[in-house]
Amino acid sequence: MRKIDLTDIEDIARGAALLGAGGGGDPYIGKLVAVGAIKECGPVDLLDPEEVPDDALIVPIAMMGAPTVLAEKSIGGKEYETLYKIVTQFFGKDIYAVMPMEAGGLNSMFPIAAAARLGLPMVDCDGMGRAFPELQMVTFTIGGINATPMALTDEKGNSVIFQTITNKWTEELARSVTMSCGGSVAVALYTMTGTQMKKYGVKNIVTRSQKIGEAIRTVKDSDLTPEEHFLKFTEGYPLFRGKIVDVLRETRGAFNYGKVVLEGIREYKGHEAFVEFQNENLTATVDDFIVATVPDLICLVDTETFSPVTTDALKYGKRVLLVGLKCFEMWRSPEGLDLVGPRYFGCDTDYIPLEERCKEGFHV
Amino acid sequence: MRKIDLTDIEDIARGAALLGAGGGGDPYIGKLVAVGAIKECGPVDLLDPEEVPDDALIVPIAMMGAPTVLAEKSIGGKEYETLYKIVTQFFGKDIYAVMPMEAGGLNSMFPIAAAARLGLPMVDCDGMGRAFPELQMVTFTIGGINATPMALTDEKGNSVIFQTITNKWTEELARSVTMSCGGSVAVALYTMTGTQMKKYGVKNIVTRSQKIGEAIRTVKDSDLTPEEHFLKFTEGYPLFRGKIVDVLRETRGAFNYGKVVLEGIREYKGHEAFVEFQNENLTATVDDFIVATVPDLICLVDTETFSPVTTDALKYGKRVLLVGLKCFEMWRSPEGLDLVGPRYFGCDTDYIPLEERCKEGFHV
Repeated sequence: MRKIDLTDIEDIARGAALLGAGGGGDPYIGKLVAVGAIKECGPVDLLDPEEVPDDALIVPIAMMGAPTVLAEKSIGGKEYETLYKIVTQFFGKDIYAVMPMEAGGLNSMFPIAAAARLGLPMVDCDGMGRAFPELQMVTFTIGGINATPMALTDEKGNSVIFQTITNKWTEELARSVTMSCGGSVAVALYTMTGTQMKKYGVKNIVTRSQKIGEAIRTVKDSDLTPEEHFLKFTEGYPLFRGKIVDVLRETRGAFNYGKVVLEGIREYKGHEAFVEFQNENLTATVDDFIVATVPDLICLVDTETFSPVTTDALKYGKRVLLVGLKCFEMWRSPEGLDLVGPRYFGCDTDYIPLEERCKEGFHV
Repeated sequence: MRKIDLTDIEDIARGAALLGAGGGGDPYIGKLVAVGAIKECGPVDLLDPEEVPDDALIVPIAMMGAPTVLAEKSIGGKEYETLYKIVTQFFGKDIYAVMPMEAGGLNSMFPIAAAARLGLPMVDCDGMGRAFPELQMVTFTIGGINATPMALTDEKGNSVIFQTITNKWTEELARSVTMSCGGSVAVALYTMTGTQMKKYGVKNIVTRSQKIGEAIRTVKDSDLTPEEHFLKFTEGYPLFRGKIVDVLRETRGAFNYGKVVLEGIREYKGHEAFVEFQNENLTATVDDFIVATVPDLICLVDTETFSPVTTDALKYGKRVLLVGLKCFEMWRSPEGLDLVGPRYFGCDTDYIPLEERCKEGFHV
């Protein structure tokens, strides 16, 4: 157990935004939400997964919706309490701790704010080790854990409880309600035991986010070049360096769909790359050659600061490094690839691990 | 208290379909659902509203969705039980009786089937005295009764509980889920006390449906002409006699929107009329003159059998009598007209009671 205090927030938010792989929400908004809660209610206890009793009730919580909406639609402040009430009433048992659903600029911060305001600890564990657009896309689905009973609430005070036959149906119904509520809502789902969390969760994700965030903050203090420092601490594979020359973006079904086109700079001059996304980056293509796909993490970072650039912050003219990170091992299993492989998202390619694609010598 | 048995079903279904004002579902499907349940579980006790204790828990139940979908998508059979469980769990109290939400071919039958299968009585009362397309459109909304907690379930086994800040928000969110579930679902909402039901409900609606159904069945056994007999027992205002020459229909947002065009027959020869609908008939226009609007009931019946023709059964060539029925008095209050007046539906006319429009001599 350790404390998460104000001084930790910035690094966690920045690192989680990188692991958000383009999605997971705006780290600036996320930071505000967590800082506000800690200032008011004090620091949060971060539990190592192994410290959690086997029969304890653990509740992942998150914001659901299109990142562009999440960045503009405010959080009401009562959401945490509403979710807490619904879940405890349903199970007739106290919640032992909350945890994040996914890593992301907002979705790593929202559970910290909830923990602070509810006076609960948070577990250093999530269900993705990155961000994904749909809610059945968690390791818990592979573990046969039900997303429901799922609680959903909006900033106006509406709330909904779902009980569905599959986790894909949960996504389907909750997505509809999210759209009707204006495009973003707060949710609590996959309520599980300590045992289940320890077996299927992506452990130490908050700590990993914080280390990555720290590495980004200190890129210029290193003996290495900033880029070497960044790549060393993130274990990233550099895929392309370019200037954003086009951004296509569409908000549909409470998702952001789109494509960002890069024109090469430095050693990539004269070459072109593009990244397609659904909230999160799905595929990266350099000169018609696919260099990375989901579930591996495809991230864009600023070439000077190495700060992550989320899909809702893409802007013409920005210079970015396209970098790939290996995904959590469980995503590479057949069950994992059924849930989040490139074919699920309509990309006509089999999954090839990032490191193998890199070996194949796509480098231009 | 009296029993509803197999011999009562046909008349209730037919009469309720007329009061459905074009909506409320297909009486043939409705009949099958109720007959099946009574055959299996025995007749249903129909309670006079005054027999219900003041503090008893009364639950209106209905099918929600587009009538064209309701006519094709089957009822799974477990819906009643699921709704019952959700409501009793939520209130921690037994349900005393169910009741219909609205009058309609299916929506008057579905609660009978539920009562039979759950072994509960049904109250002779509903919240509309007709059918309306949206779920906040009940007299209970005028009485300040909350639609939520509302239970929704589909034939696949998914279920949802809503808790909203207004009844219009209940409609909004439940409609989204209904669409995602395929366009029709079973719902329980406006759970209320006996006192509330007696104060705001439309009383004896089942009995009225049955009497109308009986009158339709016996049009040819009367001393009067069939049409006179029909108009006497329904207290209807004849508005137009015509042949259906066009039907425009669109299913959008789990509603059926459309327009049916009639070409005059008999004394209306050479004239034209049309009826616009959103599940239920909203306005009737004869030769550019509006002859009736919501909340008064606009009904189409076969010119030979006087059987109601619902919006999902409109067919080219059918000869119909367009008839208006006065709505429940509460709908004519300012609060009622805010909820279900013509302007709510986008019709550019103030509400003028049917009988006044008729006095004004629109007759061609």
